[in-house]
Order: sequence, then C-alpha cells, then structure tokens
Amino acid sequence: MAQKKVTIIGSGNWGSAIARIIGNTVVQHNATFQTRVPMWVFEEMVDDRKLSEIINTEHINVKYLPGKKLPENIVAVPDLLEATKDADILVFVVPHQFVEKLCNQLKGNVKSSAVAVSLIKGLSGKSTSSKLRLISEDISETLGIDAAVLMGANLAPEVANDNFCEATIGSKNLATAIELKKLFHTDNFRINIVQDFQTVEICGALKNVVACAAGFSDGLGYGDNTKAAIIRLGLMEMMRFIEYFYPNTRIKTFFESCGIADLVTTCYGGRNRKVCEAFAKTKRPLYELEAELLGGQSAQGPLTAAELYDVIKTRDLLKMFPLFEAVHNICIGQVPVEEFIGKIRNHPEYEDRSNAEFH
Amino acid sequence: MAQKKVTIIGSGNWGSAIARIIGNTVVQHNATFQTRVPMWVFEEMVDDRKLSEIINTEHINVKYLPGKKLPENIVAVPDLLEATKDADILVFVVPHQFVEKLCNQLKGNVKSSAVAVSLIKGLSGKSTSSKLRLISEDISETLGIDAAVLMGANLAPEVANDNFCEATIGSKNLATAIELKKLFHTDNFRINIVQDFQTVEICGALKNVVACAAGFSDGLGYGDNTKAAIIRLGLMEMMRFIEYFYPNTRIKTFFESCGIADLVTTCYGGRNRKVCEAFAKTKRPLYELEAELLGGQSAQGPLTAAELYDVIKTRDLLKMFPLFEAVHNICIGQVPVEEFIGKIRNHPEYEDRSNAEFH
Repeated sequence: MAQKKVTIIGSGNWGSAIARIIGNTVVQHNATFQTRVPMWVFEEMVDDRKLSEIINTEHINVKYLPGKKLPENIVAVPDLLEATKDADILVFVVPHQFVEKLCNQLKGNVKSSAVAVSLIKGLSGKSTSSKLRLISEDISETLGIDAAVLMGANLAPEVANDNFCEATIGSKNLATAIELKKLFHTDNFRINIVQDFQTVEICGALKNVVACAAGFSDGLGYGDNTKAAIIRLGLMEMMRFIEYFYPNTRIKTFFESCGIADLVTTCYGGRNRKVCEAFAKTKRPLYELEAELLGGQSAQGPLTAAELYDVIKTRDLLKMFPLFEAVHNICIGQVPVEEFIGKIRNHPEYEDRSNAEFH
Repeated sequence: MAQKKVTIIGSGNWGSAIARIIGNTVVQHNATFQTRVPMWVFEEMVDDRKLSEIINTEHINVKYLPGKKLPENIVAVPDLLEATKDADILVFVVPHQFVEKLCNQLKGNVKSSAVAVSLIKGLSGKSTSSKLRLISEDISETLGIDAAVLMGANLAPEVANDNFCEATIGSKNLATAIELKKLFHTDNFRINIVQDFQTVEICGALKNVVACAAGFSDGLGYGDNTKAAIIRLGLMEMMRFIEYFYPNTRIKTFFESCGIADLVTTCYGGRNRKVCEAFAKTKRPLYELEAELLGGQSAQGPLTAAELYDVIKTRDLLKMFPLFEAVHNICIGQVPVEEFIGKIRNHPEYEDRSNAEFH
C-alpha cells in the first residue's frame, strides 16, 4: 500500500505544537505515512518576511511558537489547495471561525477516501437553538469524508515542551482510530482511542463553560473545596447535556483524557478560568479583560455558554442546567457574579434520592 | 418516636469543623435529633486549662480550630462512655490509629440499634497482605452495629469557613442514609447519598496515594497537562482496585464528591501533595518534611501506598497498578523520583484497544 499523505491545516500555537509531534511520527512510521508533511499557513508578514518563508528556512514558527524547532519535514505552504493536494489525512487545527471558509475552499478538491481529524475545541457556528451541531460534522458534511477528533488535557505550551501528557482520539471507525493513533502517539503524548467521538468533541467545548465557573469561584476567593464542587457539578451538567443529545454516549468516555482530565486542566490552568477570575475581581467587561490577559487569543467559554443557553432554553431544560445558565447570565451581566453559588446551591444533583436512584 | 441522640467521637480539626455543622442541624431538625450533642474530647492541657473546659466555657476549640465558635449545644465530654451513653448515632472523626482502642472501650456499651458514621480516611490497620479491611468494617464488627461513611472534597479549614462544598454519605441502608443526610446537609455543605459505601470509603484512602504522585509531578516542575494525566491514571487505578475487590462497585459513585472531586482537591490542595512536592525538590526524608510542613498532622499517602503495595504484590497484580507501585517505591527510596514518569509511560491504560474495548 502507498504511504499516506498527511497535511496539517493550521499553524497557530496548537498547530505548531502538534506539528512537532507529527513531523517525528511520520518518520518513525514511514511505511505508513509520507514523511513530507505540508502545513497550511495563513500567510502573514513578520518583520517584513513571510511567515511561511521563515518556517521553511529557520524551521521555527517565530510568531506562534517561538523558540521551538519544527522538524524539517514540516513544510509551510500558504496555498490551501496546494497543501492539501492528494492528502489522505487532513489535520484541522485552526480557530473555529475559520473552518467554514476553509472547508468551502476545499470542497470538491479532497480525495473521497481521505479522513479528517479535528483538533478544534468548540461548537459549530451552525448550531441553532433547535439543533446542536459539531465542528467535525461541518467538516464531514462539507467535504464528504469521515471526520475524527482529537481532544485532551493539552495546554499547547506544555505539549511544545514535550511534557508527558495524554489525549483521546474519537472515531466511528476502528481502523481510522488505529491509524490516527500511530500519527499522534509518542513517548510523551499518549493516546487512547474511543468510538464515542461526539462525547469526545462536546467535552472539549463544554469544559470551557465550567472553567468560567471555576474562574468565578477563584475570583470570589473561595478555596479548593468549592472549586472541586463546581468542577463536579459542571461535569454532571456536561454528562446530562451529552446524554440528552446523544443517548448512546458511553460513561467511560468521561474518564478519558478528553473528559475529566481536560476539564481539570482547564479549570486550573486555562484561559477561560483566568479571564473569569479577573472578571469576578474587577467587574470590568470580559472583552477588555480578554484583550488584556490573553495576548490575542480568545476565551471560548462565554460564547459557548451563550450557544448552550439558547439550545437549553428552547427545549425548556434550564432547570437541569443551573450552572450553565448561571455562567451565561453572569457573562452577559444579567446576574451579579456574587450570586453564582446561590444559583447552584439547589442543584438537581442534591435532590432526594429514592430507592431507585440509591445506587 | 423519641429524638435520637448524636455523639461526636473526636474533636480535632475536622471533628470541630463538623461539630459546627451538626450543632446547627440538630436544632433545625429537633423533632428528629436531641439538641444536646456530646463531643468526646481527648483531654489535654492547654495553657494550664483542660481543653474540654475551654470548649465548654468559651465554645472554641482553641487547640484544633482556633477562632471559630462552636454552637453551645456541642458539649465537650472527656469520658468516652459518658459521651456515648445511649447514643443512637456515633460520628467517628478521629485519627485512624485511635479507632481500634476506642471501639474496644465502647464494645458492649453501645445500643444495638445505634448506627455509626465514619469520617475517617484511610484503611484499617487490620488490612493484611491477603485481605483488605475497611475502618467502617472494624467499627461495625467490634460494636455489632451498622457503620456508614461520609467522605468528600472537604479540606477542614474551608468547611470551618462555611465555604460551599459537597460530601457523599455511603450506607447500605436507605433509611440510615436519609437520616444521616439530615444530620449533615446544610446550605453550604451539600450531601448526596449512595449505597455503595465501600467505594466511598476506599476512594477516601486511595486518593492520598494519587496525591503523592501529583506532588512528585509538581516538585519535578511538570505542568497542568502532566498533573491531569497523573490524576486520571490514578483514578483509573483506584477504579481497577475497587472493582477488583468489590465487583459490585457502581461506576457512578466515582462521579460523586467522594470520587473525582475529593481526588482533585487533594491533588491540588492537600497535605500529601505538599509533602511529596517538597520530597521531589529536596530529596530529604519524608518524615522530616512531614514534621516541618504539616504542623503535627500526618500525611497518610505513603502509609497507604505501602499497605496497597502489600495487597497488590501478594496477588501478583503489580502490572495493573504501575502508579501505585511507583509511589510506594519512591516513598521508600527504592526508585529515584525522577523515574516516576518513566514508570507510568507504558500504563496498561494505553494498551491497544481491540474491537471489544473500542467503546
């Protein structure tokens, strides 16, 4: 069998960190993969030089992952169709607002046997109040190919540092999952595969809402007990939500890196926590704090909370999700952050358990 | 029905924090409980005064919970049999090395209809390499009464501060669980009840071993990704261990406060993490660091790791528990702490998943 061509679509902080991994695994498994890996770069000028040229001569993404060498077989290509020509595996790692435009460009230009794997955390912009929509579904439907996902407790700077960590690949198809594991699994980036890709993907979006709640708790000066309760209640709402929309979800998936591990990391070390802690302390607008604290990156939590709120409200499910509701209402200024704990104190999790629920 | 008499056995930091809760709930539910609550105090002299007298006049446990008022219906009693006379509910909250002696004193002096509830985290000293033994089993068998447990993400100083948090009550018996919920559930201390008391109790012991691993990670300078992976792998080993000894364990119990929430709190804010972080940084003996950092309290993690190691080794199960094994070997100086990640890199969690395991 011919070796498969891998293309990385995206070259930000996370894309560059993952390129360091893929550049090595394709060489290690050169019977399976072509060793030259094009990386589509959104072209921009850095000190009067094209970013793609800098990457291809210095092998460093000076703008988004300074100081870290990329393997030389990672080749920056600013033209999307050239980068993805004849690709068998498309690794999507771009901010989620770019997905639709990129897929529309790719449409009709992708092998029908190709597979996509999305590393993008968030919900599709095409979610409506009546239908939840995944980014992998957008990719899959637009390109007419299968789309898997990779999610996990993966703060990009630490992955770029080769710190030991884990991730979860979700794919309907076992053969695809095994092949993708080959592409990502290294000594320090440990992969598990599961079939339950929707759960994997939605966990990656919803955890940011819980991280906002954790940030409020930190900003209000509560300690570890309260934060643990919030993380747990948030996880319970994530599970309720996913079970509601995908009744076939597997409870074990929540024990993978994409579940509890990513949630914990995000609630302790992530961007949404940071911005929402500052919000609780200063009461300044979120967009100001985001600009000030995140150096150009964005906090998805408040946006995801708004999307969730829409979906939940339309279905008259607000009572099941008091934490999600409260995060949204606090983010839009409808509820003072000091009232947060009051909003989750009578969480349905604390309802009396009858014989049936007494497990 | 006559109101039930509640006795608190123990008056340390956690005992005093819980006394602040119970002193209020018995008044709130005075149709169910007697409002006078004896608290057995291990008598000691504090500035030439008896601790029990200080508590009964100033209503502050100046030694173990300074600065926090105890409700006046909490009455310090230094005589164990006097404190527990005619008691219907015995709340055990003492260091676990005291349990055996106290139970032997109580034997034959407890109502046969009484129930115990243990707040003690650890394994019984009577565990042997061939049989795991729970503290609640010691209590139950010695006194001939039912014993429930209460565990959760409950750092005592934060509970004493009335910060919002949660706990889990485990009891075989639904009626007992409901009654105990009444005794502990408040606006800021939120209780869930489960039947699966063994899981609740063992989680409370095993999490300290995982917290040692988290401490090593912190001391070695790894970040949030690595710590999240360690917490997750530790949880997987906790689940394997409990499922092995108690095949009827319910996976949902791990989502209660006694499970993931307590684990996270302990891995971020607990004593074992702290001592093991210092150990990884300084290589000084654990007992020295414990004496220096914990102000007289002890770190149960290394002891529990040794007990676990015994049980696992005897059954030839070491391969299933590389994290538990590594923590023990590092604590006893058999393995350098720098080798920790190497010991979990090929964790059985990462083994290839066949069709059957591809969920």
